[in-house]
Amino acid sequence: MDAERERPEPAEQQEEAALRSDTGRAVGFSDAVFAIIITLLVLDLRTPEVPPGGLLHALLDQWPVYLAYVTSYLYVAVNWLNHKGTFHRIRCTDRGLHWFNLGVLFSVALLPFVTAVVSRAVQSGDRFDERVAVALYGLVGVVLSAAWLGLYHHLNRHRDLLQAHTSPRFFAVERLRAVLGIVLYAAAGMVGWLVSVPVALVVFLLLPLFYGLSSNGFYDLRRRVRRHR
Amino acid sequence: MDAERERPEPAEQQEEAALRSDTGRAVGFSDAVFAIIITLLVLDLRTPEVPPGGLLHALLDQWPVYLAYVTSYLYVAVNWLNHKGTFHRIRCTDRGLHWFNLGVLFSVALLPFVTAVVSRAVQSGDRFDERVAVALYGLVGVVLSAAWLGLYHHLNRHRDLLQAHTSPRFFAVERLRAVLGIVLYAAAGMVGWLVSVPVALVVFLLLPLFYGLSSNGFYDLRRRVRRHR
Amino acid sequence: MDAERERPEPAEQQEEAALRSDTGRAVGFSDAVFAIIITLLVLDLRTPEVPPGGLLHALLDQWPVYLAYVTSYLYVAVNWLNHKGTFHRIRCTDRGLHWFNLGVLFSVALLPFVTAVVSRAVQSGDRFDERVAVALYGLVGVVLSAAWLGLYHHLNRHRDLLQAHTSPRFFAVERLRAVLGIVLYAAAGMVGWLVSVPVALVVFLLLPLFYGLSSNGFYDLRRRVRRHR
Amino acid sequence: MDAERERPEPAEQQEEAALRSDTGRAVGFSDAVFAIIITLLVLDLRTPEVPPGGLLHALLDQWPVYLAYVTSYLYVAVNWLNHKGTFHRIRCTDRGLHWFNLGVLFSVALLPFVTAVVSRAVQSGDRFDERVAVALYGLVGVVLSAAWLGLYHHLNRHRDLLQAHTSPRFFAVERLRAVLGIVLYAAAGMVGWLVSVPVALVVFLLLPLFYGLSSNGFYDLRRRVRRHR
Repeated sequence: MDAERERPEPAEQQEEAALRSDTGRAVGFSDAVFAIIITLLVLDLRTPEVPPGGLLHALLDQWPVYLAYVTSYLYVAVNWLNHKGTFHRIRCTDRGLHWFNLGVLFSVALLPFVTAVVSRAVQSGDRFDERVAVALYGLVGVVLSAAWLGLYHHLNRHRDLLQAHTSPRFFAVERLRAVLGIVLYAAAGMVGWLVSVPVALVVFLLLPLFYGLSSNGFYDLRRRVRRHR
Repeated sequence: MDAERERPEPAEQQEEAALRSDTGRAVGFSDAVFAIIITLLVLDLRTPEVPPGGLLHALLDQWPVYLAYVTSYLYVAVNWLNHKGTFHRIRCTDRGLHWFNLGVLFSVALLPFVTAVVSRAVQSGDRFDERVAVALYGLVGVVLSAAWLGLYHHLNRHRDLLQAHTSPRFFAVERLRAVLGIVLYAAAGMVGWLVSVPVALVVFLLLPLFYGLSSNGFYDLRRRVRRHR
Repeated sequence: MDAERERPEPAEQQEEAALRSDTGRAVGFSDAVFAIIITLLVLDLRTPEVPPGGLLHALLDQWPVYLAYVTSYLYVAVNWLNHKGTFHRIRCTDRGLHWFNLGVLFSVALLPFVTAVVSRAVQSGDRFDERVAVALYGLVGVVLSAAWLGLYHHLNRHRDLLQAHTSPRFFAVERLRAVLGIVLYAAAGMVGWLVSVPVALVVFLLLPLFYGLSSNGFYDLRRRVRRHR
Repeated sequence: MDAERERPEPAEQQEEAALRSDTGRAVGFSDAVFAIIITLLVLDLRTPEVPPGGLLHALLDQWPVYLAYVTSYLYVAVNWLNHKGTFHRIRCTDRGLHWFNLGVLFSVALLPFVTAVVSRAVQSGDRFDERVAVALYGLVGVVLSAAWLGLYHHLNRHRDLLQAHTSPRFFAVERLRAVLGIVLYAAAGMVGWLVSVPVALVVFLLLPLFYGLSSNGFYDLRRRVRRHR
């Protein structure tokens, strides 16, 4: 009787299977969101409205906007590569995975905003504005790393969602990358607020490079380091 | 003779088959529309234009914009999950299905607009503006639920469009969810207009949570509740 | 010798095959463009900036923006359905097909602009502005119909690009729909300019309905009419 | 022993394979970015805000915006065709290919900006502004050609990433196209700065046509020329 009760009838079994779907739509939707976010800052590259003869000066004057565009583009690109590397190892999705993925997309979408806040504070704010902007940037970095941590943790706990070719330890190790991100962005934000804005900015510029190099995971990084020895 | 007349010639049969196509393009197009809508409100997160030293105050001051971004993001995300759960059960499309799908996308696209209207009325309008904004939000909630009802009803009447693994009763039951949405959004809008704006706002915040939990249908919700007992 | 010269060597044959690719990318790119265009007018739905108490009046006052949103949405939706119906019958693409497709996307992208021009002229222009706006709308309708005509003509001349299930007469007949579009939009534009703006506007509203009904081609329309008799 | 050390254990081999993934996501992401860029300039087609009766004059007055839209659309379209022709010959991706692809997308995203700068300088700047704008346009043309050169060079050095049907010499030859682009855009920019703005503009208009004709590679162009003799 109990065994009967445990075993779902075929119709329900099919519905059960239906709940776990392949990653196609999550990937297509995420790619579109990443594409929109990565081009959002291009909208800030505007033709300066200046009197005749002032174009060159006005174009050079908005250099923080160019720097913000480059930085934001790199950071979003690294997140896209991370996303690609992650979903490449996923076989099917469940409800929790979708929500953690939506959390990552939500946080990535904040990057153009906080990058613009920092670039404007550097360009036309005072020292206090700069500290506020740098702390805000660090906060969003923490939120984004936490979103990745949630996603990695979920995947580590639900290994039936993973591809057969994925090492069972992969996402357990990846969580360390996300924890490191939380610590480093929090530290950089606090250094920027309490000690030195330029130091924090340099850390912010270097962190995406580190994540770009390790976007296929510590596993891969270790192997590549080993190979070059 | 009549039998002959009923049976279409092969060429027409092939054209007939051509009219029923797989869901690939409807899904790809919908994903892109959802991705754009979900990022539209990020455009409202703007660097405040303030004199030096005023950044922190200005950033804190635009809290309704942040809340609107979060709310709108959640609501659109829930609709995307609903859409995914629905099309996962569809095998092929006909003309009617496309138009009902376009109706859902049309209504979802109104969410950022009405969310911004509510957040602005709360921030800088008077009591009358708040009642207007809340009623408008309820109205769009009714329109969106009605669009889903149309889609579910069409799918219930054309079960040849469904996947083999889909329970024949699935979309018949889903219609109840949509009807419930119409009733609740209409009620919340009227409560907001006639009685209390805050009560309506709380209902608006809770409704997406309910739809998020049941985005795989009442069927699934029932089974999950049963499993946890 | 000549036979030898006619027959390309294998390597070139493979390159030749490479030039004719499946429709996947053209379809994905077009879907994204359609999705962006169909949501562009949502950006014009803005929270009115009014003193407290004026929200309701201001919201009602911008009714032409709502009407423009609905009209533009319908017209773009019909074009997407046309596009879907067309590419559903295409097996592979060549360079010319890509350029005609890019021409259709170029013209569709003009719709939000001219719709906004018409709605603004009706709302706050004088009689002369209305005539200008209606003539401009008719002109873009002609350009869009001409782009479709080019695409259909190309497909009719290169039937090796079509799916096996596509009737060889299909795109030959479809060209008539496009020619009809050119004539009717030109006529409506001229009527609006010379005789009566409202008559032209009614024609502009009705034309997408006609194209929506026949978006699977005259072939299909004829069969459906026959079936209902 | 050494042979053992060289041969990676199966688990690592599988991870290795995982790093080389098919082109699906790179293509989907790129298509969405191209779609956004190609429609960005439509946002500059705005209904002129003029007193009643002034619509026609105002619409005609913004002709450089229309020209900029057409030019930018064509240039982005040609880049999309180039991208399609390139990825059609790619079997799988590695990390380097992703970064070169992201570099191409980054540079293409600058086109709407510099096109708008040129059109504005022609419309309302003085002679010095025009020279600045033309030089900037040439600079972005150089950057974009350099991004393509990097991509082609990477593909030429990693022929294991290519499809079986791709001629091994293909991307070696394509590099010449990119080098030619660098030279011609640099030359046109310098001519515009030092000698004559109109000459530079004509070159800028003609270059996309050349790239459009050769978007399937010199290989194809040569064969088509031969066939027409």
